[in-house]
Amino acid sequence: MSQAEIGLIGLGVMGSNLALNIAEKGNRIAVFNRTTTRTDAFMASAGNLAAELVPAKTMEDFIASIRPPRPVIIMVKAGEPVDEQIAVLKKLMAKNDIIIDAGNANFRDTMRRFRELEGIGLTFIGMGVSGGEEGARHGPSIMVGGTPESYARVEKVLIAISAKFKGDPCCAWLGPNGAGHFVKTIHNGIEYADMQMIAEIYGVLRDGLGMKPKAIGEVFAKWNKGRLNSYLIEITAAVLAANDPKTGAPIVDVILDSAGQKGTGRWAVIEAQMMGVPATAIEAAVAARSLSAMKKERVTASAVFTKAGSNSLGDPNSLIDKLELALFAGKIAAYAQGFAVMEAASKEFSWNLPMATIARIWRAGCIIRSQFLDTIASAFEQNKGLSNLLLAPDFVTMMQGATPALRHIVARGAQEGLPLPALSSALAYFDSYRQARGTANLIQAQRDFFGAHGFKRLDAEGDFHGPWGSGN
Amino acid sequence: MSQAEIGLIGLGVMGSNLALNIAEKGNRIAVFNRTTTRTDAFMASAGNLAAELVPAKTMEDFIASIRPPRPVIIMVKAGEPVDEQIAVLKKLMAKNDIIIDAGNANFRDTMRRFRELEGIGLTFIGMGVSGGEEGARHGPSIMVGGTPESYARVEKVLIAISAKFKGDPCCAWLGPNGAGHFVKTIHNGIEYADMQMIAEIYGVLRDGLGMKPKAIGEVFAKWNKGRLNSYLIEITAAVLAANDPKTGAPIVDVILDSAGQKGTGRWAVIEAQMMGVPATAIEAAVAARSLSAMKKERVTASAVFTKAGSNSLGDPNSLIDKLELALFAGKIAAYAQGFAVMEAASKEFSWNLPMATIARIWRAGCIIRSQFLDTIASAFEQNKGLSNLLLAPDFVTMMQGATPALRHIVARGAQEGLPLPALSSALAYFDSYRQARGTANLIQAQRDFFGAHGFKRLDAEGDFHGPWGSGN
Repeated sequence: MSQAEIGLIGLGVMGSNLALNIAEKGNRIAVFNRTTTRTDAFMASAGNLAAELVPAKTMEDFIASIRPPRPVIIMVKAGEPVDEQIAVLKKLMAKNDIIIDAGNANFRDTMRRFRELEGIGLTFIGMGVSGGEEGARHGPSIMVGGTPESYARVEKVLIAISAKFKGDPCCAWLGPNGAGHFVKTIHNGIEYADMQMIAEIYGVLRDGLGMKPKAIGEVFAKWNKGRLNSYLIEITAAVLAANDPKTGAPIVDVILDSAGQKGTGRWAVIEAQMMGVPATAIEAAVAARSLSAMKKERVTASAVFTKAGSNSLGDPNSLIDKLELALFAGKIAAYAQGFAVMEAASKEFSWNLPMATIARIWRAGCIIRSQFLDTIASAFEQNKGLSNLLLAPDFVTMMQGATPALRHIVARGAQEGLPLPALSSALAYFDSYRQARGTANLIQAQRDFFGAHGFKRLDAEGDFHGPWGSGN
Repeated sequence: MSQAEIGLIGLGVMGSNLALNIAEKGNRIAVFNRTTTRTDAFMASAGNLAAELVPAKTMEDFIASIRPPRPVIIMVKAGEPVDEQIAVLKKLMAKNDIIIDAGNANFRDTMRRFRELEGIGLTFIGMGVSGGEEGARHGPSIMVGGTPESYARVEKVLIAISAKFKGDPCCAWLGPNGAGHFVKTIHNGIEYADMQMIAEIYGVLRDGLGMKPKAIGEVFAKWNKGRLNSYLIEITAAVLAANDPKTGAPIVDVILDSAGQKGTGRWAVIEAQMMGVPATAIEAAVAARSLSAMKKERVTASAVFTKAGSNSLGDPNSLIDKLELALFAGKIAAYAQGFAVMEAASKEFSWNLPMATIARIWRAGCIIRSQFLDTIASAFEQNKGLSNLLLAPDFVTMMQGATPALRHIVARGAQEGLPLPALSSALAYFDSYRQARGTANLIQAQRDFFGAHGFKRLDAEGDFHGPWGSGN
């Protein structure tokens, strides 16, 4: 029996699906799970694919069954379990073997693990995998960070299992050490913003126009044929159309309005903060999830404050067209922020991230997949030094066309008391970004007044202080 | 010669002023600076106060001159210099001696230092000091974190040097270990939001109404007599009135619109993120500073995008009244967020932070000082379990009165292309907070659709999945 091409530890849903995907593409794969009954159950359910699967009962057998240098994918819970797994593996592995973390790790952990393993002759790949369970099984988007040599060892398998956009594989080596997990984190941050903006537009349709879920779903289904075409808009239409088997009501009407979060959105915001890159739409989306979880307080507050606004949003048809454009403009700003964060990280960590490639491997497989990412890829191909998507000619045109609608919707939402945290932050970002002369001159004057921080002048080099006199 | 009551290391501007303040209140104080020429210069400039100052040339002499248990204030650059200073001190200090870090430390460093010193019988106070150079010299707001015993040793001195609000000292022990520095961090976060909102209103007056700095300054001076009365509004009026000695132009017109930041605003945002507390106005303010620093990109973008809006903001007089109320509403939301972050931290770190006391010691001395904080203190006194300022009866009344103006200004800003990132985020926060039924039900449906994350129902306990069918 020939050796396995690759190994995988952790047969949860994601791990199992990834293993089946690898096997299905004709790659022999060794699998191991700490609880061996799970391995047995997995093998029993694998059907024909069992022929490509090499189940191991012990870690020693597992390692021995893989062709050196051995690539081993770990698919366990992020955090300590990954370190525990690495501690076990590094005792058994040989020089140049490759440990691959395919979970949602914090890229700072990935960088630390890379350094630690490098010190003992092993190597590490931090691999972002997006697409949920279905993606893992039938084609995810794969973002790889590690050495080029280690990627070369696994490239064939990863390309084979990845999603394809018009034949192009959605898998790439993006840079050394933490690059893959960082890009996955920003992917998730953008996903938060995208979902939040969709939810805000849903809120306007529901609370501003009084539309029912079915009708709202039809609006999203129609939009999915146009400029907003994307997986998230597609599933928004689908969930709005779905009924609850128990009550017969639209399913969204029986779901609690408290959203969970797993940490990657928060990491995206924190990293943006650390580098001083404005990522306000992502921040607003993360904050909106936190606010959603404060259900009890919100119920209390709603009883205390009278309802705002007149609830008359004007002609529904013209408003719906404006909502489509407003969502599009907000989405562009959010993606511009996400890519700007990656640009800053690329410099900070000397990763040299390939922006066009990142956009390309997000076109299929992942949660934010869409045609729109093709336009982003083109923008970065045309101008490799592009500092912000908003400055790319195609995006200037799109924003010029869509911002009047975003202005209208943000203004109407403000007047009517419909919360639009992410969309309004996106507009404020755009308006701040295109403002040659901002208002921070006042802030600098204040800071110098109370803290003698000094300021720069428009007409001279150097640091200056204001004529505030003494005693202030 | 009697022993000194306290010691201070680091005779920069803040350290010197604090030492003079301590001496002026009749407390004998030992001072030390690594560069002894600075100590000499400081003594030479101290005038009459030199009688209370005990300059030391060596660290050994310095320590020996203080009455045990010895409290030693360190006023050096935050970060490594503090650790270096502690390393020197701990070799010379005796059991129960107290090291006091009066710089802008990250409270996580303070907690670590507290633990490390506790292990060797010393104790540590993390002390937030706000008020800039003038505050340090004549009365700062002082936020203390440490053991009650160590506070008792220094309480008399700290109370004496602190600012007074109608006779009440603006100094208090707020809780153990990192409590003082955490509260100072949130103070600074609120300060960022307050300053940013003022700058946004300045922008509307300047760019929306075409007013000159002098006239804008008069508006702020007038507002300073009303509900907005505060140090920040007062100095805004002052800086807008000031002329540049070099050109004779209003000073704000020659200052570069790029604001700096020292990190505390960012820390406030990061800690809020870690605890999942929405602090969107503070986030927007920090992001606005980052955007302000991108001057070159903004100039490029301004040339690419056509100007938005019609530039007609209606009757200036009625608009100015609305701007006052809008700023007031935004400010309330920002303070509500800041206090909510402290409430969460108080639980997270078991600090039992006294909210009313915090508001009280901010009423004078610090940068955000204002009458308004007296109203906040009352709200927390009336209801110790208050989960959010927005739910306090006085604040409900104030918000009811002020939000229509905030709605109007945010809407007009959106339409005219005047960026209002902090004010619009404050409105979105308020509108999300007072929304009993939000839109996160849609987000939960999406998450369950693509990631099988599950959701809760409105009509039953437990975790559920949607009827999405297979293959999705």
